[in-house]
Amino acid sequence: MDHKDDNFCSWSAFATMSYSVTERGCPNSLEYRMFFNGPNGNIISPFHDIPLYADADKKILNMVVEIPRWSNAKMEINKEEKLNPIRQDVKKGALRYVKNVFPHHGYIWNYGAFPQTWEDPDHTTEETGTKGDKDPLDVCEIGYKVHPRGAVIQVKVLGTMCLVDEGETDWKIIAIDVTDPLAKDLNDVDDVEKFMPGFLKATNEWFAIYKMPDGKPLNNFGFNGECKNKAFSEKVIKECNEQWQRLIGKQVECDDLACENTTVAGSPYKIEQGDAEAIVKKSAEPGSAKDISNTVDKWYYVKL
Amino acid sequence: MDHKDDNFCSWSAFATMSYSVTERGCPNSLEYRMFFNGPNGNIISPFHDIPLYADADKKILNMVVEIPRWSNAKMEINKEEKLNPIRQDVKKGALRYVKNVFPHHGYIWNYGAFPQTWEDPDHTTEETGTKGDKDPLDVCEIGYKVHPRGAVIQVKVLGTMCLVDEGETDWKIIAIDVTDPLAKDLNDVDDVEKFMPGFLKATNEWFAIYKMPDGKPLNNFGFNGECKNKAFSEKVIKECNEQWQRLIGKQVECDDLACENTTVAGSPYKIEQGDAEAIVKKSAEPGSAKDISNTVDKWYYVKL
Repeated sequence: MDHKDDNFCSWSAFATMSYSVTERGCPNSLEYRMFFNGPNGNIISPFHDIPLYADADKKILNMVVEIPRWSNAKMEINKEEKLNPIRQDVKKGALRYVKNVFPHHGYIWNYGAFPQTWEDPDHTTEETGTKGDKDPLDVCEIGYKVHPRGAVIQVKVLGTMCLVDEGETDWKIIAIDVTDPLAKDLNDVDDVEKFMPGFLKATNEWFAIYKMPDGKPLNNFGFNGECKNKAFSEKVIKECNEQWQRLIGKQVECDDLACENTTVAGSPYKIEQGDAEAIVKKSAEPGSAKDISNTVDKWYYVKL
Repeated sequence: MDHKDDNFCSWSAFATMSYSVTERGCPNSLEYRMFFNGPNGNIISPFHDIPLYADADKKILNMVVEIPRWSNAKMEINKEEKLNPIRQDVKKGALRYVKNVFPHHGYIWNYGAFPQTWEDPDHTTEETGTKGDKDPLDVCEIGYKVHPRGAVIQVKVLGTMCLVDEGETDWKIIAIDVTDPLAKDLNDVDDVEKFMPGFLKATNEWFAIYKMPDGKPLNNFGFNGECKNKAFSEKVIKECNEQWQRLIGKQVECDDLACENTTVAGSPYKIEQGDAEAIVKKSAEPGSAKDISNTVDKWYYVKL
């Protein structure tokens, strides 16, 4: 059996572990929420209940897609609301859309997060002297398919950049969908530059400038912007998974985070399915999508 | 009254001249066609019946949008089919999609054509020694709104590049929607670089390389790729309008072109509305959209 078949077989095993989403409120409104359901249909938290590893031996991870490539809506797993639905970030009372910074259109990867990870705000990254941003670990998935918001996909890790976003450590893991035709050729950070020349540089530049059209300063990077390798990335992921374990087990407390979950054995935050259903039911009724202003389509010109 | 009001007033006058489209066949199929209707609902040809000038005194032109910005389907006004519906170009029996050449996503402007223009294949461009490509004149509209396919919008002309596409002269006019907030500031080619730094260079590069992922060579440009100014562009447009006038008046013949029209006074190709309706009726029945392969979303890496 060649490598390609290997990849395919391991992936089809995970495919049976299918997750789905329940939409509440009207899309493109302040009330819109995307709750998650596990393989058995039960309500789960995408932050806490989806296992980090789809196959730990093969180093294949689950990733929750929050923002499809080439889109602008700043959607994310909400840390503060019970069961952590995906919702759109709000700035000054309005839904937040990331600006198109020329020549890019929206996000240039499928952007999302690793479940069961957390960047502890009490943990200092030695090299940058900055503390964690209190979020699940961010992932840029660089395969060719545009994945829908809310998809749970299986990825392999290739590298990581250390963004310092407004003074906080914000790791950006670079990964690829294991079903991508290139996945078998991409095994570490150097392979990315070989097969996708210029893409890591564009990734760096994108994160450095993406808030500038909103009047924010240039973001900085640890390690001079260098994309660290696979081995380094795995260490970061392991640490963030351990930080999450301490959180979910209440070895550390973080009052403003919603740690409700429905499956984590031993967690003091575990709730019954009936209580989870009540939380979803209390959210806004589903409705049809609201129009989006066409100003979201503007291009902004930023010089580095 | 300030300039902004001026712009708005002149635009609302054209807005009353509303065009619409009649879709036939299933979207994303070989049979899909988009026919045009004039302000009175009558069937028209977008190539021949829409006036080139929306306001000749103010130098405001009508443009037919064929390809919305950031999309890939190579849709165009068909020169050979009666009434010249918009349809997707076909290569080797398959619908043609232009490749995403990194870092760009699909077309980087709203792309389309000026009605009542034609690049005569017997006309040689002095500077390049190449002949016309037998198409209506192409337009890149650089305003911020993404316009839907089939929209007829009003634009002002800013400049032009002279692409030499597979050995034929293929002018690319740069224009902006008169309703764009930047339109009042953009009056000639130099203003584009001032307000949208890097965009003309990206336009050049895009046209140079866009066929390379399909195995075609780099395209060349006349005038060393320079974007000629507004005055030069107006001369090109005038010439192409005159070449169209000779075509539609049968002073030149071009057997494989469909010159049927329903409004051009004195044209020997003018047909009755009933005959036009019969042509539309003979095309495929409308239906729901077919799926598009996600390989259209791939990014290709081309080094210049």
